[in-house]
Amino acid sequence: MPLIKIDALEGRSQSEVATLLDAVHRAVVKAFHVPVRDRYQVYQAHPKGCLVIQDTGLNIPRTDKALIITVISKQRDEILKRRFYKELTEQLTSSASLAPGDVMVAIVENSAADWSFGNGEPQFLTGELG
Amino acid sequence: MPLIKIDALEGRSQSEVATLLDAVHRAVVKAFHVPVRDRYQVYQAHPKGCLVIQDTGLNIPRTDKALIITVISKQRDEILKRRFYKELTEQLTSSASLAPGDVMVAIVENSAADWSFGNGEPQFLTGELG
Amino acid sequence: MPLIKIDALEGRSQSEVATLLDAVHRAVVKAFHVPVRDRYQVYQAHPKGCLVIQDTGLNIPRTDKALIITVISKQRDEILKRRFYKELTEQLTSSASLAPGDVMVAIVENSAADWSFGNGEPQFLTGELG
Repeated sequence: MPLIKIDALEGRSQSEVATLLDAVHRAVVKAFHVPVRDRYQVYQAHPKGCLVIQDTGLNIPRTDKALIITVISKQRDEILKRRFYKELTEQLTSSASLAPGDVMVAIVENSAADWSFGNGEPQFLTGELG
Repeated sequence: MPLIKIDALEGRSQSEVATLLDAVHRAVVKAFHVPVRDRYQVYQAHPKGCLVIQDTGLNIPRTDKALIITVISKQRDEILKRRFYKELTEQLTSSASLAPGDVMVAIVENSAADWSFGNGEPQFLTGELG
Repeated sequence: MPLIKIDALEGRSQSEVATLLDAVHRAVVKAFHVPVRDRYQVYQAHPKGCLVIQDTGLNIPRTDKALIITVISKQRDEILKRRFYKELTEQLTSSASLAPGDVMVAIVENSAADWSFGNGEPQFLTGELG
């Protein structure tokens, strides 16, 4: 937790995807202070025409490397989300050759009872996770 | 915002997907009164057997053209959601050859702090977006 | 409702996917007491490297069969969620050859106005669904 889903255009090699996912995870760990093995990521590449990312009139330039990153997370303070957006953009620009305009994020929040990490148990409720 | 994810069966040509995404976007603009460039869409085609859409006993006929449309959005009034469902169905039936029964929608809401459209900034908090 | 999205690694045959989706649906019906035709499922296979599922330090073993199951649902009591996690794991281990450690779930909740099952209508608001 969080669970990160990344939508992108086709074109990255397997090693580029690995580098990108590592960068995203570093941002999660740094911004949200989660354990290093708190890593749940799905990367989905799409053919051109199946992903549209414009800019709501913000004049944000987009390239074919643009990412739409959806984050499912327990509730977190606004200050942590701000930190996450900054950290994520820094990690992706420094390590994965992305431009700052190519990183879009949408967060969806849920609660402690909404997670089971395996074995049919809700680990935030059983006390296994704090 | 909103971010629209569409799941469908394989079989649409690139130009059919383009027509469909344009129709969905017109409905978003008309129903939610968002800027024209407030457009974020992902279209994912699936092989038969990987998408199941039944009807909860509502006697809604489904065809191989059926869409499951997931919408991530800031909170919107019920009246706007009703308008969106109607507008979406009208646009897709008139422009993209869909039957009204083939349009299913699930909305998930989040908050102002949950969006970054690029550059590591939360534009609903910085004042860039109202 | 609920809408179930399943992410997995590539490698299952069409009939294995069918078996798996049937098992997931049995768990939904048993735990949430929904109608049998209340079935909405998307199964997405990913190449290796595009899906990462670790364990937050919980020592949960993962194999290449691991599933990340995202559930969009109206609000449900904690007791029903607990029952769902258990039931889901039992169904998947007994029918679809999964290990209990390979079943991860994240639930996201929404409201009655957030669903349209077709025909441009919000069936939880019109009274067609209770």
